[in-house]
Amino acid sequence: MREREMIRLLQRKLPTIGDDAAVLPFGETHLVLTTDMLYRGSDIPEGARPWAIGWRAVAVSLSDLAAMGARPLGVVLALGAPRFDFERGLLEGVLEGALACCDSVDAPYVGGDLSAHRELTLVSAAVGEAERPVLRKGARVGDLVCVTGAMGRTAAALKLFERGDRERANRLFAFPPRVREGRALAPYATSLIDVSDGLARSLHLLGEAGEVGFRVEYEAIPVVPEVEELAQSAEERREMALFWGEDFELLFTLPPGYLRRAGEAVEFAVIGEVVPPSEGIRLEEAPGRANPLEDRGYEH
Amino acid sequence: MREREMIRLLQRKLPTIGDDAAVLPFGETHLVLTTDMLYRGSDIPEGARPWAIGWRAVAVSLSDLAAMGARPLGVVLALGAPRFDFERGLLEGVLEGALACCDSVDAPYVGGDLSAHRELTLVSAAVGEAERPVLRKGARVGDLVCVTGAMGRTAAALKLFERGDRERANRLFAFPPRVREGRALAPYATSLIDVSDGLARSLHLLGEAGEVGFRVEYEAIPVVPEVEELAQSAEERREMALFWGEDFELLFTLPPGYLRRAGEAVEFAVIGEVVPPSEGIRLEEAPGRANPLEDRGYEH
Repeated sequence: MREREMIRLLQRKLPTIGDDAAVLPFGETHLVLTTDMLYRGSDIPEGARPWAIGWRAVAVSLSDLAAMGARPLGVVLALGAPRFDFERGLLEGVLEGALACCDSVDAPYVGGDLSAHRELTLVSAAVGEAERPVLRKGARVGDLVCVTGAMGRTAAALKLFERGDRERANRLFAFPPRVREGRALAPYATSLIDVSDGLARSLHLLGEAGEVGFRVEYEAIPVVPEVEELAQSAEERREMALFWGEDFELLFTLPPGYLRRAGEAVEFAVIGEVVPPSEGIRLEEAPGRANPLEDRGYEH
Repeated sequence: MREREMIRLLQRKLPTIGDDAAVLPFGETHLVLTTDMLYRGSDIPEGARPWAIGWRAVAVSLSDLAAMGARPLGVVLALGAPRFDFERGLLEGVLEGALACCDSVDAPYVGGDLSAHRELTLVSAAVGEAERPVLRKGARVGDLVCVTGAMGRTAAALKLFERGDRERANRLFAFPPRVREGRALAPYATSLIDVSDGLARSLHLLGEAGEVGFRVEYEAIPVVPEVEELAQSAEERREMALFWGEDFELLFTLPPGYLRRAGEAVEFAVIGEVVPPSEGIRLEEAPGRANPLEDRGYEH
């Protein structure tokens, strides 16, 4: 996969790409538009239930809206599936999961397209509105670095699918898109991204966009309890928390003066602070010992 | 393929589906949102060039906006492709075609998603605005039945691909989405649909939605010159004109009093008139001999 090279090509041709969703000025406000593809061969593990697949297929686009601080206006889902998937009723379960996910964040699910395809392929698109979209750029030195929820959720889900613990795996796989949180944070956050490529990669993207550095404390990063249970070494725990990706939590920067008000609106953890760009992206893994954080993550 | 059964299921669950795009009331106006999937295995013939594939991939969603009388606000494209397609530069051509198509109708192309996939898969989504979206329902007895452009364009393209005449085939394959026409007709048309499933099927959809019948004259239906050239029998000409589908022209109904004004704004042909529902959908193939028109067409 040369995805990052392709993204650079896409960016040359498409100046507005490079945030979680495209921003379209519209009258006094902005529309934001995004699309995401899931595909059985690479994004859907063996054992994933139709309901969880449908939930996740729209949740990824809703997470992009959340990462702009936008209110969802409409979601569509294009479904491609082989004939046998049509026949065994898989699509009905997929659709029910998609509808349930949209309902969970008051996003209107408004339709889609249906095609024959060799392998199950799901592509959601979502449009939202944000008076003041929160971009990836905007972090200022001295801001706090924060995340909603806990890291390692998809990493744990994939391990549980491998083990055949489908009940817990499906529950983790159908992650909650942080739409309410994104909207509540929009008045306060100086920059915002979802952690779809992993925390390490997302920190680098936010740092590049804002031309700042970060100092993050490893101990302060929340991880889901399943990571503690499933990781067989400190090294594996670190991989699951920082690099596996597809966590779909919100990573954002916050001026310290807004900490109280933002904290009343949304639950989150402070994991570090914004520093000058010359310091780079550093992770403090033991007190006083901050090393450069590797710029790698999951590539979809 | 049991697409029609699935569509019925989708309709039960999704009340707003069933038009060319979903309509979202937004302040004083409406947003319209649509998505369409193309896939190498069923929608992209051997010999189709990357540029034409990219053009068509966004043109299908733009055609849906046109069929609502909407102004495009933004288009995104999700691309799934095998590694070798990334490597041989196919995606760059696809993207150039997609951008050219968007430019041709002043639609902002604002980004997309890129994934590894087993087979080339392209899913566009588009959002537009229409103060008064034109729906499939709305035809009134006495209205004229009209189409833009000419039928059989994709039928001819596919025959030319089979023959290896790639130059002409690719030109036809990259059809013009009728965005300008849809917007110009919106003040006058009582109902509107694009002919994506073929003229016969589209007439049935428009008739069902509006609870009316149509009487259409076969001789009045314009066909592309390539159909006359390629059809080897009167029967084959009829198939290409009425049933092959994917023509992406606009089919609409027009009160006779608007004929002059609409005709000044857009080129189109009058092919029949709206009649009471009891008369059904009839095709006059010889003077005075109108037979029921079969309800069949291309199923994607």
